[in-house]
Amino acid sequence: METEVEGGSSSGGLVQLRKGRASVVNLPDQWFILCLSSELRKKPIVRELFGTKLVLFRDGAGKVGALLDRCPHRNVPLSEGAVHKDGTLQCPYHGWRFDAGGACRFIPSLPGEPDGKARRALAFPTREQDGFVWVYSTPAEKGEPSSAPHVFAYKDKPGYSTVTQVVEAKGTLYSTIENALDVPHTAFLHRGLFRSESRGISITAKVHRTKDRVEAEYVGEPRPPGAIARILSPSGGIVTHFDRFILPSVAQVEYRIGTENHILVDSVMTPVSDYVTRIYAVVTFRARVPHWAIQPFIKPLALKVFQQDAVILEKQTETIHRFGGEQFVSTEIDVLGRHIWRLLRAAERGEKHGAEETDEVSLVV
Amino acid sequence: METEVEGGSSSGGLVQLRKGRASVVNLPDQWFILCLSSELRKKPIVRELFGTKLVLFRDGAGKVGALLDRCPHRNVPLSEGAVHKDGTLQCPYHGWRFDAGGACRFIPSLPGEPDGKARRALAFPTREQDGFVWVYSTPAEKGEPSSAPHVFAYKDKPGYSTVTQVVEAKGTLYSTIENALDVPHTAFLHRGLFRSESRGISITAKVHRTKDRVEAEYVGEPRPPGAIARILSPSGGIVTHFDRFILPSVAQVEYRIGTENHILVDSVMTPVSDYVTRIYAVVTFRARVPHWAIQPFIKPLALKVFQQDAVILEKQTETIHRFGGEQFVSTEIDVLGRHIWRLLRAAERGEKHGAEETDEVSLVV
Amino acid sequence: METEVEGGSSSGGLVQLRKGRASVVNLPDQWFILCLSSELRKKPIVRELFGTKLVLFRDGAGKVGALLDRCPHRNVPLSEGAVHKDGTLQCPYHGWRFDAGGACRFIPSLPGEPDGKARRALAFPTREQDGFVWVYSTPAEKGEPSSAPHVFAYKDKPGYSTVTQVVEAKGTLYSTIENALDVPHTAFLHRGLFRSESRGISITAKVHRTKDRVEAEYVGEPRPPGAIARILSPSGGIVTHFDRFILPSVAQVEYRIGTENHILVDSVMTPVSDYVTRIYAVVTFRARVPHWAIQPFIKPLALKVFQQDAVILEKQTETIHRFGGEQFVSTEIDVLGRHIWRLLRAAERGEKHGAEETDEVSLVV
Repeated sequence: METEVEGGSSSGGLVQLRKGRASVVNLPDQWFILCLSSELRKKPIVRELFGTKLVLFRDGAGKVGALLDRCPHRNVPLSEGAVHKDGTLQCPYHGWRFDAGGACRFIPSLPGEPDGKARRALAFPTREQDGFVWVYSTPAEKGEPSSAPHVFAYKDKPGYSTVTQVVEAKGTLYSTIENALDVPHTAFLHRGLFRSESRGISITAKVHRTKDRVEAEYVGEPRPPGAIARILSPSGGIVTHFDRFILPSVAQVEYRIGTENHILVDSVMTPVSDYVTRIYAVVTFRARVPHWAIQPFIKPLALKVFQQDAVILEKQTETIHRFGGEQFVSTEIDVLGRHIWRLLRAAERGEKHGAEETDEVSLVV
Repeated sequence: METEVEGGSSSGGLVQLRKGRASVVNLPDQWFILCLSSELRKKPIVRELFGTKLVLFRDGAGKVGALLDRCPHRNVPLSEGAVHKDGTLQCPYHGWRFDAGGACRFIPSLPGEPDGKARRALAFPTREQDGFVWVYSTPAEKGEPSSAPHVFAYKDKPGYSTVTQVVEAKGTLYSTIENALDVPHTAFLHRGLFRSESRGISITAKVHRTKDRVEAEYVGEPRPPGAIARILSPSGGIVTHFDRFILPSVAQVEYRIGTENHILVDSVMTPVSDYVTRIYAVVTFRARVPHWAIQPFIKPLALKVFQQDAVILEKQTETIHRFGGEQFVSTEIDVLGRHIWRLLRAAERGEKHGAEETDEVSLVV
Repeated sequence: METEVEGGSSSGGLVQLRKGRASVVNLPDQWFILCLSSELRKKPIVRELFGTKLVLFRDGAGKVGALLDRCPHRNVPLSEGAVHKDGTLQCPYHGWRFDAGGACRFIPSLPGEPDGKARRALAFPTREQDGFVWVYSTPAEKGEPSSAPHVFAYKDKPGYSTVTQVVEAKGTLYSTIENALDVPHTAFLHRGLFRSESRGISITAKVHRTKDRVEAEYVGEPRPPGAIARILSPSGGIVTHFDRFILPSVAQVEYRIGTENHILVDSVMTPVSDYVTRIYAVVTFRARVPHWAIQPFIKPLALKVFQQDAVILEKQTETIHRFGGEQFVSTEIDVLGRHIWRLLRAAERGEKHGAEETDEVSLVV
């Protein structure tokens, strides 16, 4: 495979390098998690998606409204207002009231009909599912959503336990997703913790890309030497390892070690802004040992791994800022990176990345 | 009346909304207050107008000079220098000296004539009037001012008292002016303080726009229920209420309650920068009760009202910044807004907004 | 001589002035000092040149590598990594290793050859000379340097002593160089310290510009009245004074007072970014009095002079920022300014400023 370059090309001078911008800054027609259900109570809250502020609130029936956080009248943020007793969200400046669909229901001092096309607040479709508030990235006025939010396959399944963790990385959506699915850095950046430095074992990654996802199956991988693996499978056993990226922003890591241990980590990413990504991580697992014995270790370990990644992602982001955009060079062992990049870029243009592709890559771990 | 939209149009996407800029960022050939007379003593001071720094100083005769705060020689701010004993302003770097007209009068070490066209500091016409230093927004080299500063009609008139207050809002010039003249928000934002929430009384606003101003006369308005009105007219009485915008930046509110009470508030706005407006408020009043009994209440009450407005204007400004410009939707009860907008935009282009216009609007207070 | 204007032209309005940018923002094919030899030990360090971050490190043989501070793989700053025991610089994310020439020598987990054109880190030629690390401003891949770093003529010469001082100014490269060579401001800004205010003595500056430098010889100059001169030459004596600018960024001041005293100050400027310049000042001197008696006075005096200049340069920079670029007006007593400007601008375009020029200017000191 040829070396591939993603992002702007470098002309090799000094000043001329400062060009470009973040790789992926908009993904229309997609569902993203904007908050936990438990975070949204009586007060409206603000969340950012691709740099745009949205206000979330619950109407009288508990249904979630997601509106552009800017009153159409005089551009005051609606999130500074309050939910009226009639379930509408009221602007704090002139008291205009909007329902969860964005329609203007009341304008103080106005004798006539309050609603009208120009007076509506831009509204986005919402779903509440699995304890998360999902918001669709294209306004409701453009029509019904063409897809449904991601489903967590083993959440609440018999025999499985779930651990949820929310963290935020100062990284682009692409970089944060790739980081979550990238094998080579684990042996170096997380050495001692997650993997050891190379044991010189040659393994194969079988890659399969379809319209909305790409999957790598790692074949020949020994049981990881790290702490997680030792807890899960003290006696070793056959390791099955899949890494998957699912559009628009799910990084999924699945391990089976022996017959009894099974762990699925869904990291659902929210592109807060060009350079900030929030991660809603849902870990579902089944294990040989009692879950109460494992559960206390999962969060601290995951957070320590994340902490090391977060430091690198932030420094990477600073450099990307400084040089004006991503200019990445990949090798074949950046197994999923180029596929993620292509899927995201196609989704940004509103296209499906057509061709299926399969590939086989060797790497040494 | 159709709903009107001022500012950039929204395409309805997420990222695409970030466009545009502040509505009014330059008003040539107009007078603005840059400081109080009492603020300008022996030391030069800096003031900003439409984002441009000017240095103000008094020459030997006490006349105010207003120069671009940038030495033409090496661009050091002249405001960091001092007024020389000959009444010129001297640059702190090489000691060049400029008179109030901007002419270069002395260059240390230079054997020949100091003055020359390119060596002049850009000077702006000034007037000192009513205790304020007014500066013209077009350089003196373009010719004599075509207008005179605003006159305060009742200042120092027999029977009238005056209260002056200077405040600064983080708002655009347009938003700050409209806020000062907007009736509907008073019942909502200032409820309890200035007006009550709607009493369901229908009133009429008669609007009259000419080349340099727009006036609304409110007909059928009851005595305001708030504290100000109760102090002024305990027994009620016929209320006459005019709101006026006068180019370039005067918001004028006039109330007569009964025959004895008369209050005129001139809020003269200085566009400090695109998103900061300073307000020189001059309250002149005549009243039934002794002025010494009213005077102590005016400032605290006005400041409380202003404080509530300032919070909203700042949040509005943040939203305008974030979304890249103003995108306002108006209804007929935004009585003066669209007229102010048109007058300002015409003035920005150096035109007179030609057509006279009259209008009648119903609103419920 | 006509008054000359450097930089953007002013249209005289208010808002319209905000244009342009720093005068000189790139000088290709030139040597600059990036650090002292003593600053670069086992850890890599970061230095900025024209706003671009470079990482400096020593390889196994002690040779200095200067690479663009951005790993070609995933854009993490290489300066956050460490020098490996094999003398390569290792990225902290995936562990890629680069030699001083920028070649990629190792990629963890990759079975095949690590190096490849796209995988190289952009490398810049380096020289270590006179205790300084010099870096060439054009990448090594463009070919061998066409010049050599500046030589300090009297450093380590018999009878001479050397004092070195590093300071940083918030000024553009042009402004900082001109400041170091500008005579008129010394009598005003540094009055009492360095020169007295004018003694009314007329002197002549003989200017001679060639392809890569411009020199002014001051004829008829009395012994400076300041502290430095009194220490050097208590009995007076003939004063010889040369000021020189040598491309790309050397400001050189040379004084001979009488036959025994000789001082040469080389201020080698590093354009850190558009508005920050670092000055590596090397003072070499020979004097009548014992050097141990002079040496303690040189640094404090020079730093006091520099402090006054630094304040002015910072204020100048703020103004240039605010007004969007330099707009300088010069007179004939800005003896070297316009020549420095032309030499820098020609060098920025990669040209030699062809014509020789000589000039004679009178000024009063």
